[in-house]
Amino acid sequence: MKIETIREAAGRLAGHARRTPLLSSPFLDEIAGRRVLVKPECLQHTGSFKYRGARNTLAAMAPERRARGVIAFSSGNHAQGVALSAREFGVPAVIIMPSDAPALKIANTRALGAEVVLYDRASEDRDEIGARLAGARGLTLVRPFDEPLVIAGQGTVGLEIAEDAAALGLDAAAVLVPCGGGGLTSGIATALAAEAPGLRVHPVEPEGFDDVKRSLIAGEIQRNTRLSGSICDAIITPAPGDLTWPIIRRLCGAGIAVSEDEALMAMAAAFTRLKIVIEPGGAVALAAALYHGSEIEGEAVIAVASGGNVDAALFRMALERFG
Amino acid sequence: MKIETIREAAGRLAGHARRTPLLSSPFLDEIAGRRVLVKPECLQHTGSFKYRGARNTLAAMAPERRARGVIAFSSGNHAQGVALSAREFGVPAVIIMPSDAPALKIANTRALGAEVVLYDRASEDRDEIGARLAGARGLTLVRPFDEPLVIAGQGTVGLEIAEDAAALGLDAAAVLVPCGGGGLTSGIATALAAEAPGLRVHPVEPEGFDDVKRSLIAGEIQRNTRLSGSICDAIITPAPGDLTWPIIRRLCGAGIAVSEDEALMAMAAAFTRLKIVIEPGGAVALAAALYHGSEIEGEAVIAVASGGNVDAALFRMALERFG
Repeated sequence: MKIETIREAAGRLAGHARRTPLLSSPFLDEIAGRRVLVKPECLQHTGSFKYRGARNTLAAMAPERRARGVIAFSSGNHAQGVALSAREFGVPAVIIMPSDAPALKIANTRALGAEVVLYDRASEDRDEIGARLAGARGLTLVRPFDEPLVIAGQGTVGLEIAEDAAALGLDAAAVLVPCGGGGLTSGIATALAAEAPGLRVHPVEPEGFDDVKRSLIAGEIQRNTRLSGSICDAIITPAPGDLTWPIIRRLCGAGIAVSEDEALMAMAAAFTRLKIVIEPGGAVALAAALYHGSEIEGEAVIAVASGGNVDAALFRMALERFG
Repeated sequence: MKIETIREAAGRLAGHARRTPLLSSPFLDEIAGRRVLVKPECLQHTGSFKYRGARNTLAAMAPERRARGVIAFSSGNHAQGVALSAREFGVPAVIIMPSDAPALKIANTRALGAEVVLYDRASEDRDEIGARLAGARGLTLVRPFDEPLVIAGQGTVGLEIAEDAAALGLDAAAVLVPCGGGGLTSGIATALAAEAPGLRVHPVEPEGFDDVKRSLIAGEIQRNTRLSGSICDAIITPAPGDLTWPIIRRLCGAGIAVSEDEALMAMAAAFTRLKIVIEPGGAVALAAALYHGSEIEGEAVIAVASGGNVDAALFRMALERFG
């Protein structure tokens, strides 16, 4: 990934993706024992950074190919990013979702104009359904992370962090990024290596799903043994991607794994101190900043809050336990 | 109030107050039946717009006078705005709060470095305590709304709205503003009259506390009969101010009154669709945009979400009932 590819993405996203700020609170600084800055991508269109990569991918497609439509597999944030981007270009989007996906996410994806195709996880083959539909209709697959245009789109988060950190006079900081397949992490790491080399990315994952942390220790790709059973569903993937892993290995510092309770505590802290709504998977970086200080070096930390698509019942539970 | 006074405030606040964006969601547009843009001042430092007026007032004071310190009466958002501003200038702040104010707000105000003086609402005279302390220590009173520098600071919200609306190509819209004493409303109205005359401000209040709406109908100041018993505590005041009322009468369109349930519904909608946390008093303008469309003209509405300092228990209740 070249920095120029991310700069091109920024050009395509200008006037479309929301330019998110860096938020802060003296109360968070006190908990962390250092300066804490939060990049609230929960405020991005569709409630997560995923819109950036999806919109960049569609914007870069040849118009004739794009006009035939796009297809994606997702039960969550990527689905909504692709659906909104397709609607903005006036082209069809087919999203293949498991039939047991949350009803609200299915409804939202449909409301954004996408055709939702449900499949049964136990008896049907998602990839076969996708390949058949794509072939029959000439749809282009938009991958969730292992795709250069997607990584470049997510990397624009890093360009904004570099710009805002410079304006604050910050030339050294740990940058904590919630990490699933690694699209956001590798994109930000590439942007910062070029624009703000004193800002070092650390991937953050939930305990029990820390494939990237273990891969960094082992020096080669490690896989998760489980793929469900976490409230941090937005960032649960089998392993880092073929494109994202070499970037992460080359540019990132050590990974950090946080507990589910720490993610819920970070959600409550963001509610009280920043007035933003974060989902569990989007809260792991802030959780690491607040509760894993001994694994971080330096006087400042920037935590990406990658998404806010959380059900009201789960959010209420976080506030009840930790608010 | 001259527009130059607000521009001077913007100069003093540059690099200190957070520049908040305009947020939107196609789902909110659908509820309202028109385009909805939200100005999230809940993301401002201390969780409300009050920081702008307080910081501007302290920044404009003569340094020798400021060094003796400031004093304010407040049980909520103004207290935190004054406390943080005073801490930034390294000067003392005394905040006089009722002893039955929420423990969290007292704790936050103290944590921001202010000296909190509690008084008993039933048996003690707040003004007498304030006058005595101010006289003995040479403290300067920072009024919550009826003060030109405070109005000018809040008016910078209007400058930002004008700038962002122009960038979106919006030259006509209703601008709905939560209204207590009228500092924010009159400041924004002054800024927009000069910078974006097609954007017309409408004050929004809770039912039963709609002194400004009734004042606009009567053409002279009307008072509230009650001063407590609303969850919208942040915007409950006896009547519009001597300075704010003439501005509101001259520049604002009709007032709108919303129910407490509508405010709670707007809080839940902002949680689900915008990923921001709003307090009931800060949600009344969004409530008017979503549920009082027949009282608004035009194809676009801009709602100011003025603050987010809400207790977790009340927020959970809003989500439980309407999330």
